[in-house]
Formats: sequence, structure tokens, C-alpha cells
Amino acid sequence: MSDHLLGPVHVVGAGLLGTSVGLAARRAGLEVWLSDRSPEHVRTAVGLGAGDPAPASGVAQLTVVAVPPDHVAEVVADALRRGGVVTDVASVKSGVLDDVRRLAPGGVQRYVGSHPMAGSERSGPLAGSEALFDGRPWAVTPHPDADPAAVALVEELTRRCGAESLRMSALDHDRAVARTSHLPHLLAVLTAGQLAGVEPAELSLSGQGVRDVTRIAGGDPALWRQILRANRPAVTDLLRQVSDDLVRLVGVLDAADDDALGQILERGVAGTRAIPGKHGGPSLPTRPVYVAVPDHPGELARLFADVGEIGVNIEDLRIDHDPGRPVGLVELLVADEAAEPLRTALEARDWTTHR
Amino acid sequence: MSDHLLGPVHVVGAGLLGTSVGLAARRAGLEVWLSDRSPEHVRTAVGLGAGDPAPASGVAQLTVVAVPPDHVAEVVADALRRGGVVTDVASVKSGVLDDVRRLAPGGVQRYVGSHPMAGSERSGPLAGSEALFDGRPWAVTPHPDADPAAVALVEELTRRCGAESLRMSALDHDRAVARTSHLPHLLAVLTAGQLAGVEPAELSLSGQGVRDVTRIAGGDPALWRQILRANRPAVTDLLRQVSDDLVRLVGVLDAADDDALGQILERGVAGTRAIPGKHGGPSLPTRPVYVAVPDHPGELARLFADVGEIGVNIEDLRIDHDPGRPVGLVELLVADEAAEPLRTALEARDWTTHR
Repeated sequence: MSDHLLGPVHVVGAGLLGTSVGLAARRAGLEVWLSDRSPEHVRTAVGLGAGDPAPASGVAQLTVVAVPPDHVAEVVADALRRGGVVTDVASVKSGVLDDVRRLAPGGVQRYVGSHPMAGSERSGPLAGSEALFDGRPWAVTPHPDADPAAVALVEELTRRCGAESLRMSALDHDRAVARTSHLPHLLAVLTAGQLAGVEPAELSLSGQGVRDVTRIAGGDPALWRQILRANRPAVTDLLRQVSDDLVRLVGVLDAADDDALGQILERGVAGTRAIPGKHGGPSLPTRPVYVAVPDHPGELARLFADVGEIGVNIEDLRIDHDPGRPVGLVELLVADEAAEPLRTALEARDWTTHR
Repeated sequence: MSDHLLGPVHVVGAGLLGTSVGLAARRAGLEVWLSDRSPEHVRTAVGLGAGDPAPASGVAQLTVVAVPPDHVAEVVADALRRGGVVTDVASVKSGVLDDVRRLAPGGVQRYVGSHPMAGSERSGPLAGSEALFDGRPWAVTPHPDADPAAVALVEELTRRCGAESLRMSALDHDRAVARTSHLPHLLAVLTAGQLAGVEPAELSLSGQGVRDVTRIAGGDPALWRQILRANRPAVTDLLRQVSDDLVRLVGVLDAADDDALGQILERGVAGTRAIPGKHGGPSLPTRPVYVAVPDHPGELARLFADVGEIGVNIEDLRIDHDPGRPVGLVELLVADEAAEPLRTALEARDWTTHR
């Protein structure tokens, strides 16, 4: 096979991810074939410009399997039997690899798993975008028997789709997403579970904190069931550790052991600082500036126009949703040294601000 | 005593909350006296216009105690001995009430606890703002022996400071904040704790989800130690329930019990929907529109100017921080039916969007 990605790229599964791969590959000038169990999905994706319907015969240089988690391995095995290099975009990698070894032992050296960190909350071809992967991490998970040329081809696809290619083993990948995605999801679910069925009055003091902690718990249970089932060993390992931590925390509170409680809280602070910052660099020290903004169209525009003219870069922002608030509070996170100048400049433009 | 709040209001403790109470009460036309163990804090708060230094003698109509949690009860008792109605702004209410009953049994009918839902992450008088309480819930927690006129006076203060006054018992308050604030905080701490000391490569796939879940775990451990110690019974009750839920979750995953897992995930979804929406109403159905925004000053301003001209109200927004992303992804949450028109209008103005 050629060392370079020349196409065609055959995308199997024209949902959000498959359609986005098609659009991004087309943007990169590659020929794309599309197939899906649903002819409607193929028509929609073709209509969006994500590629052409796959021909009845012919072998693509690279097949990208983007079907629901439970069906990935069998579809990968089918593709390997047709020929060419095959990757998939499922969010858990070890189980797929094991199944592919079993289902297509003769072709496994042409299989290289991958996982773009993008877009799991939306679904369907209409949600696709050529820009979905731009600048996002896209894990590529070669196994020891993988043909190096196949690995190179999959990595080239991830880069040409605009992503940042990160190579790691399937096992390392699954442990990493267990820690940074599946565990947070489940703890958000447990936190949110404690709000279900509670008297509304008991939730009337809810602030931004509980909203942030529980937001991802709103994700699609059907999809999450498949993800969690696929990554069971890594997820249960971490859950058992957290379960031990939780038992210990209750003991520390019962014993009124202030020092031990302090250590647990400090470890949490250290954890928030360990998350990589924007653009992969270390987290920059930032400071919030709060601005009161009347809650109607145009006011945010006026605020950002002013911020833009002042020339300060905003690292992050959020709108405060506290119940009963007639005026929105916008939190602008900016570099430490930019906070005071920004506040002064905004006050000069008649905004009510505080730190 | 008068049924109406005429002043003076004596604020004891000129930190963030005390200074903000002073500023808001001054805005409402009330005379404010300020005192603090630190003369520097009083000078700063006076300089900001939060009031005048408290006179050596004289009794305020209403004293507001805004000192650190561990010292609240003794300062409330001192104030009751001086005379007038006394409230405090500590974030846990039952223990303070018990201590005040013990320390100042003759004055407890003039004590009415309260708790504004505002500002715990920042500190110091310089962080104060007259707008800090505007539209926020401010819990007022009368006890059975409280003089109704004292309750009315404290409620009048909360309203004149711009807040929405919510009356509940100390016990109900403490249970409510255990559920909506202290429990989420601790589960965020445990989630973040699993990121501390981990190889950076294992965190390279971190997305917005884990950032949201863990953000509040960055709060000040010294303050949180005091809050958690003060609300121990309610917090440990909930933690034990979550500990049971967690053991059950591990069992469900081990047994590959898909139906039970689905029920746990569905309960989480129900919990996210139980949180009151913006302005206290039920959560409106919203839909995200994603817009790619180059990460430099002025681009956000241009985006919001366009959104403002299009005339769509933004319910919430966030900037996606995925590592390695050269282009920021802004998520605009708008009313369900406004999403498609907004997307079309933004595309017409040359923005790259997706759902």
C-alpha cells in the first residue's frame, strides 16, 4: 500500500462523527465514500457534501468505522475482509481490538483504532461539521502487530481532518478516558441523582456550582450505557478507589479530623491544577472580572464590543444563572495582570463590575 | 423597636460579604457602621463608601455579623448584649443558633440567622460590591422563639440589598445547602483528587466535561473545612447515601446489569432537570449552537455584535478549552426554536457553525 493517504476514504456510519469525518476529509481534498444502514443518513450526508455513496465493489485505501459502540468490531472485521487499512472512532478501544483479533485474525495488522475527542452529545448527520475536529486531540491506538504503514495512514487522516494526533496504547487510552471522562460522568450522575425527586424548595438555593458539577449527567443514557459497558474494567477500578476515598471522607468528617479533611480538600485543589490548560499548555493564572449585564438581546454584544475595543483576551467566561436574578452576571476570566485594567476600563464605559 | 428598617446598620466584619452589605445598604439610603478586628479592613471599606467606622458607644437597629464561620456565634452573642436585632451571614445556620442560645439565652429572640447565596470564592473588602446580592437568593432562617418584628427587619434588609428573600428553618437551610452546595463540592473534590499526581499524558484527553465537574474543587480549603465542619450531620447523611449509591453502581457494572445501569443514568438526567432554571422558573428547553472563533481579542466581540444584531437572546454560553485547539469553540445555548435561525444567520455572516 502507499505510505501516503491518497484516498478513497470509506466512511461506514453517517452519523455525527462519520459525516464530520467525510466533510473534513473532503475539505482536505480526499475522495470519500459513504455508507450506512440507513439510506436516509447516506442521502443526508451526501447532500451536505460529505462524499459520495459507496460503490458496490472496490476497495478503499482507508475505511473509517463510525457506527454505535456495540457494532464497531463486526463492522471493522467486515471492512478488513474487503481490504485496505481500517480504523474506527469508538470511545473505548481495548474491547474492540480484542473482538477484531477474534473476528478477523488475518487482517488485524491492517486495523488501527482511534478516538477523536469531539462531539458525543449531539447526533445525526445534520449535526456534522468539517470543523468538528479542528485542534482537538484525536487518539490513535496502535497495537504491537499493527503495520507501521497502517498506523502512519491513520495518523495522517487525523491530522488532515484538523486534529492533533496523540499516539497511545488502547489500554492507556481506556484508562485515560476512564479517569478524565467516564469517572467524572458517573460522579456527576450520582451528584445529580441526589437532586431527583427532592422537594423544589430544597433546591431553591442552587447556584452555579451544582449546575457545573451535574451538567454532563444530562448526557444520553443509551449511549453512556454502551460506553461504560465497553470500559468496565478501567471504570470499576477507579470507582472502587473513589468508593474507598468516600468511606474515608465520611470517617474523617465523623471524627472531626480537620487536618485529614484539609488534606483531602488540598488534593482536590491539586487535581484541578493538573488538568492541561487551553491549547495544551500549563494552566495560566487567571482572575475573574464580574460584570452585571441586563438579560436582553444586545447587551452581551455591547459588553463584548467594549471588551474587544479594550483589547483584552478572554480565556473563559460564564453567565451566572442564579434563580431570581433579573440581571445576568457575566464572569470574564482573563490573565491575572489584565483583570484590574479591564475592570477599570469597563467601569469607565458605565458597566457595573466587581472582582 | 420600629417595624421598619431605618438604620443604623452595624456591619461587623469588613470582608467581601460585610463590605458588600455595607455598600448595598448605603445604596439603599441607610446609615452604616463598620467594624473589624483589622483596622486596615475598616479603612478600606470606609474608603470604598461602605459606611463609617462604628462609634465607641450607641446601639444599631440591626447588626449584621459577617466574620469567619468559626467566630460567628461569639460575635453574634456580643452584639445581642449590646442591643438591637442581630443577623449573621454564615453559610451554615443550625450550629450558630445552638451556640447563640447557649451564649446569649436572654437575647436569642432578637437573633435571626441568614445566608446570602453570593460570593464565597473571593475575599477581602476590595472584592466587595453593592451589586453582589442583586437578584440572588438570600435565605432568612427564623427560629420559633424569634420576635416576628426581628424577622421582618432582617427580611427587609435582604430585600433592600437587592436580594430575593427566602424564608426557611435553619435545619431546612442546612439540609438544602448540604445537597446543592456541600455534596457537589465534595464529589468535585473526589473527582479532582483522582487527577492529582497522575502522569500528564493520562490527562491529555481531558475535555470540557471534567473541567466543569471539578471546577469548584479549586475553592479555598481553609474556608471549606469550616463550612463542612459546621454542617457535618447533614453532609455526612448525604455522603452515606452517595456511598451506598456508589457501591451499588460498582455492583451493577460488575454484574453487567444494563437495565439497572440505565436506571442510575436516567436518575442523573432527572436530577439535572430538577435544578431550577434561570430566574427561578422551570428550565427552558435550550439547544446549543457551536461557533468557531479565532482565539484573539476582538473576535468574541465581533461574534456577540453579530448575535446582538440578529436579536437572539443567549441563555448560556461557554468557551471550549480543549488542549491544542488553535481556534476557540464557543457554545451558545439558546431557546430550542431560536437555534436554527441563529445558525443560518451566523453562517450568512461567514461564521463557521455547527450543532
